Amino acid sequence: MSQSVDRDDRREPVMDVAHLGHLEVLTPTPEESRRFFVDVLGMTESGRAGDSVYLRGWDDYERYSLKLTGAATSGLGHAAFRARSKQALERRVAALQESGLAIGWIDGDVGHGPAFRFHDPDGHVIELYYETEWYEAPPELRPYLKNQAQRFPARGVNVRRIDHFNCLAADVRANRVFFEDYLGFRLTEQIVMDDGREAGMWLTCTNKSYDFAYTHEAHGVGGRFHHLTFALDSREEILRAADIFRENDVFIETGPHKHAVQQTFFLYVYEPGGNRIEVANAGARLVLAPDWKPIVWTEEERRHGQAWGLKTIPSFHTHGTPPLPGDLAGGDR
Amino acid sequence: MSQSVDRDDRREPVMDVAHLGHLEVLTPTPEESRRFFVDVLGMTESGRAGDSVYLRGWDDYERYSLKLTGAATSGLGHAAFRARSKQALERRVAALQESGLAIGWIDGDVGHGPAFRFHDPDGHVIELYYETEWYEAPPELRPYLKNQAQRFPARGVNVRRIDHFNCLAADVRANRVFFEDYLGFRLTEQIVMDDGREAGMWLTCTNKSYDFAYTHEAHGVGGRFHHLTFALDSREEILRAADIFRENDVFIETGPHKHAVQQTFFLYVYEPGGNRIEVANAGARLVLAPDWKPIVWTEEERRHGQAWGLKTIPSFHTHGTPPLPGDLAGGDR
Amino acid sequence: MSQSVDRDDRREPVMDVAHLGHLEVLTPTPEESRRFFVDVLGMTESGRAGDSVYLRGWDDYERYSLKLTGAATSGLGHAAFRARSKQALERRVAALQESGLAIGWIDGDVGHGPAFRFHDPDGHVIELYYETEWYEAPPELRPYLKNQAQRFPARGVNVRRIDHFNCLAADVRANRVFFEDYLGFRLTEQIVMDDGREAGMWLTCTNKSYDFAYTHEAHGVGGRFHHLTFALDSREEILRAADIFRENDVFIETGPHKHAVQQTFFLYVYEPGGNRIEVANAGARLVLAPDWKPIVWTEEERRHGQAWGLKTIPSFHTHGTPPLPGDLAGGDR
Amino acid sequence: MSQSVDRDDRREPVMDVAHLGHLEVLTPTPEESRRFFVDVLGMTESGRAGDSVYLRGWDDYERYSLKLTGAATSGLGHAAFRARSKQALERRVAALQESGLAIGWIDGDVGHGPAFRFHDPDGHVIELYYETEWYEAPPELRPYLKNQAQRFPARGVNVRRIDHFNCLAADVRANRVFFEDYLGFRLTEQIVMDDGREAGMWLTCTNKSYDFAYTHEAHGVGGRFHHLTFALDSREEILRAADIFRENDVFIETGPHKHAVQQTFFLYVYEPGGNRIEVANAGARLVLAPDWKPIVWTEEERRHGQAWGLKTIPSFHTHGTPPLPGDLAGGDR
Repeated sequence: MSQSVDRDDRREPVMDVAHLGHLEVLTPTPEESRRFFVDVLGMTESGRAGDSVYLRGWDDYERYSLKLTGAATSGLGHAAFRARSKQALERRVAALQESGLAIGWIDGDVGHGPAFRFHDPDGHVIELYYETEWYEAPPELRPYLKNQAQRFPARGVNVRRIDHFNCLAADVRANRVFFEDYLGFRLTEQIVMDDGREAGMWLTCTNKSYDFAYTHEAHGVGGRFHHLTFALDSREEILRAADIFRENDVFIETGPHKHAVQQTFFLYVYEPGGNRIEVANAGARLVLAPDWKPIVWTEEERRHGQAWGLKTIPSFHTHGTPPLPGDLAGGDR
Repeated sequence: MSQSVDRDDRREPVMDVAHLGHLEVLTPTPEESRRFFVDVLGMTESGRAGDSVYLRGWDDYERYSLKLTGAATSGLGHAAFRARSKQALERRVAALQESGLAIGWIDGDVGHGPAFRFHDPDGHVIELYYETEWYEAPPELRPYLKNQAQRFPARGVNVRRIDHFNCLAADVRANRVFFEDYLGFRLTEQIVMDDGREAGMWLTCTNKSYDFAYTHEAHGVGGRFHHLTFALDSREEILRAADIFRENDVFIETGPHKHAVQQTFFLYVYEPGGNRIEVANAGARLVLAPDWKPIVWTEEERRHGQAWGLKTIPSFHTHGTPPLPGDLAGGDR
Repeated sequence: MSQSVDRDDRREPVMDVAHLGHLEVLTPTPEESRRFFVDVLGMTESGRAGDSVYLRGWDDYERYSLKLTGAATSGLGHAAFRARSKQALERRVAALQESGLAIGWIDGDVGHGPAFRFHDPDGHVIELYYETEWYEAPPELRPYLKNQAQRFPARGVNVRRIDHFNCLAADVRANRVFFEDYLGFRLTEQIVMDDGREAGMWLTCTNKSYDFAYTHEAHGVGGRFHHLTFALDSREEILRAADIFRENDVFIETGPHKHAVQQTFFLYVYEPGGNRIEVANAGARLVLAPDWKPIVWTEEERRHGQAWGLKTIPSFHTHGTPPLPGDLAGGDR
Repeated sequence: MSQSVDRDDRREPVMDVAHLGHLEVLTPTPEESRRFFVDVLGMTESGRAGDSVYLRGWDDYERYSLKLTGAATSGLGHAAFRARSKQALERRVAALQESGLAIGWIDGDVGHGPAFRFHDPDGHVIELYYETEWYEAPPELRPYLKNQAQRFPARGVNVRRIDHFNCLAADVRANRVFFEDYLGFRLTEQIVMDDGREAGMWLTCTNKSYDFAYTHEAHGVGGRFHHLTFALDSREEILRAADIFRENDVFIETGPHKHAVQQTFFLYVYEPGGNRIEVANAGARLVLAPDWKPIVWTEEERRHGQAWGLKTIPSFHTHGTPPLPGDLAGGDR
């Protein structure tokens, strides 16, 4: 068992982070990207401000789960988690102030109140907030069932809600320990190389088996982004999504197939701005154990490929955003 | 908003209960019931003691999720929740000791350590424990993927894991307040009659939208059981389960269809001992908001039937276990 | 075995009718009906002429499968089958000319060449043609894969192709014998009452287990229409269709559930003009045997309800189009 | 359009072959192979004779669809088609007698009457018969619904029925023309190389888009076998089958994915004897047009990979049975 789990045994779990709230994704082709998220993924625009449009899946309870911002290049603007309570937010901020990685408070943004910003050890910007705006559907988007945030769009891929994201990091272990120690995330699975170096880690603050992942950045560049994932209700919908991506000339990088790690049923595409987007479904799998014992995958085990034998596509280890010099966004098609 | 939610606003959520662990279900036909759970539902026997057999779905991480006990009649033996930590268990026990409903400690049972027993206001026996035995699959049941508790059985309905249970209660409100106040469960949906009486409540301690439900007992009898539910991975599997139940002469009470409340895709049958069993799937729906605003259904709204219009079957309001005099188990077929 | 089967044993099967081509459906609310078929069912408009719009599913290889015609009331305009060859059409016309039910040739219609019209014994208008126009998708509707007629619309219910239709008939047996003798259809299943009267019959000219059905008209009116069915690829899509119908305020009469007869997974709704529309899926079921032995269902067997126990909804035996006096279209909601 | 289609335009289609009946598959490991088909695929043993066991899917209407025969090596024993009638059988035999490839009559086999054997131009043995034994399920295998051949096994992969097979041939065109001319099969899709050589052909005698395929044999050996395919009801079941194959240490060669050609959703494995077995599903796709225009795929188009971009696995072009020297059955894992 890893050291962090030993630590957990000595103290109670910290439950201060409630869930992943939204991502800000940068794109050099904002209008093409917006059309991809609205027309192909089936998201709904729920706000505009400055160079950003705000977008949501039909089951996101907050106003939005994606802030799409026009920029010089692609990549992650920031990732934002919602705290469990005001007091929980204050506790985490107090801890983060001591981390040496604090950026500081912002007043808020469309849809949420004051947020505390900090860097992870690799340089990505992360945000923590509590006050949020619950989505109020306009009349034409009101659902038939009142326990649903918005009516089912019946357009394109119909993504349901944000599920998780994946960043690249030069030092995966350092980032894992940071998120465990300062924010209370729990490790559910990881890849550890034969030399002890950590190549991937999957962390959760919910009963989902992961809310985000960091995998190894092999190119010595900080702050790069790997992908953002939206959940669909069934694997049938993900298979259909593959048809829809093809019909809309969206580049499919790999999938649909089932990951060995986390058993996620995956499908990866590149949106027009070059960012990798996943639609995924994990069935009824949940991590319910409060003392889950992390699964550690070895190099040898990872050589077996994905759950049903598909080899991991090489670009999965190289393509991130912003692209490296020579890796034109989507240019490795 | 309900009063309990106002209370939640004044204090931080209590996160001491981690998840539903197992149910003890009583049956007057233990061998027929065991065959149903093993051969038809596809569960695995993982222990025997006294008049009980212990059974598990292939994704239950603990040794078992169902203790099936031969008895004079059907119904609920007890329901057991796992605490989040030793300290969390101690805190809940301290609170329950003041509730007037404590029964006291038991030394443990097959697969788990010391457990504290208490009654809910309707008289059902509930149990709280922390120490548990993680399931160790024997060689012939080891899974291909190490992040799975047991290999997929490929037999019968292949239930994945315990999902939730439903009891009957004469005073639904009293039971709701009890579970909220003493155990920290959160209300996600409820049915409130025009006269203000509560007819149903769905509570959670996880990101599942409910871990158990209580609905109105119209017959003035305490401690009755409505159903136990196992999760499957997809709605396709639930449709196939219906075929398998029919082929095995298992009585289908209602379904497959989609509930309006909680949007669960449901299928209800009676096991040979007369207890109602559900297989269900809720897609990717999770309650992630830490301050979820409970959905309140009115009498008028419930008259619209289930999500796609199916009328609620009358036996759903009358059949429970143990049966009432004159309601032979399954006799209302 | 039924008499018709004995006849088949004495001679070779007639294979002159290739498949169901299209239906003309009448509606008193043509614009609302058109919007239903395009926006909710996801069909594509492929022509207009007079009071008619022509509509198609994305996998119909002919120009259209539905001619929707504005009229004083609802019901069936005509049903059209495509012959296997020019010679096959001539043979069938020669036979029909002797039937006493011939209407005669029409020059053709949008999308197809000369057609021979006749009445069935109950008075419905049926049409047989061979020359047809293969659908040519405009550039924006061209599919990614060249073995597909049109790109997947990703809009609404996304019906794939016409599957079958169902008429009412006062004398089911007379209609069955007519279609067997004059057109070579083969009986796959039927319902025969205890008194020997036929209450339903399912006929095929393909490897689908039926291309149309006739069920008993209890009201002494000729020429009424029961429903038109479009095929979807999966049961998952039919479950999702139910959500979409609800969100669009489309009346769901019954389903989703599985018929005992033919095992069709069904969902019935009323389009705005009052006609019953079904979306259905039968999995991989095909009738491949050239000498299929018809399945005969008795009254007793039909009392068991549908495949998983749902009782047949009473309106299924009464609602047809045009409506009877007092049965406002959709008014029995 | 290909020449054969021009021929079809000049004459009526021949409809004398009704459907694929069964395959005889050879295996050097008969007991391991039998266990694979029964325990993993979920087939039912319905006869034994000599070195052969007879096996069936739960929806095969004939007694069996697979004759599994112990032999020195793997490969195809023979493929058998059922004629549409006695007269149809006689017509085809008369034609085949003139083909120079006739072998002659056999008296019959378990489950079917007299059969006429012949070679295709590549040397595979093909059989045509009419008289057949309809499967009569023993009491414990009787289905709940009388329109089903056998109860659903709820064991392993639960294959429904035989769907199609694929042979290798040095001269694909010669084999295509033979099956078109002597047996009336219709070409639905084909691959034609830039130099005009045919690399693959898909033929049908039903409304399925193909009943068998021949692809190019690059190794100058005659009579080799590529794969046998069983149909499942849904893509969900094929995804689950992949799990079940992995749990049972069955080698997955490629899939699940969707073919561009024919749009089949495929999953290929090797049974213990080395023969390639596919489980597949094509949704509601049927070829209903009696004058279907064959789809011709070019080299350039095939370079795009499968429907969602997966590259065709190299072993798909090399592994056949019996294996070539140096290609140990399954040894290219």
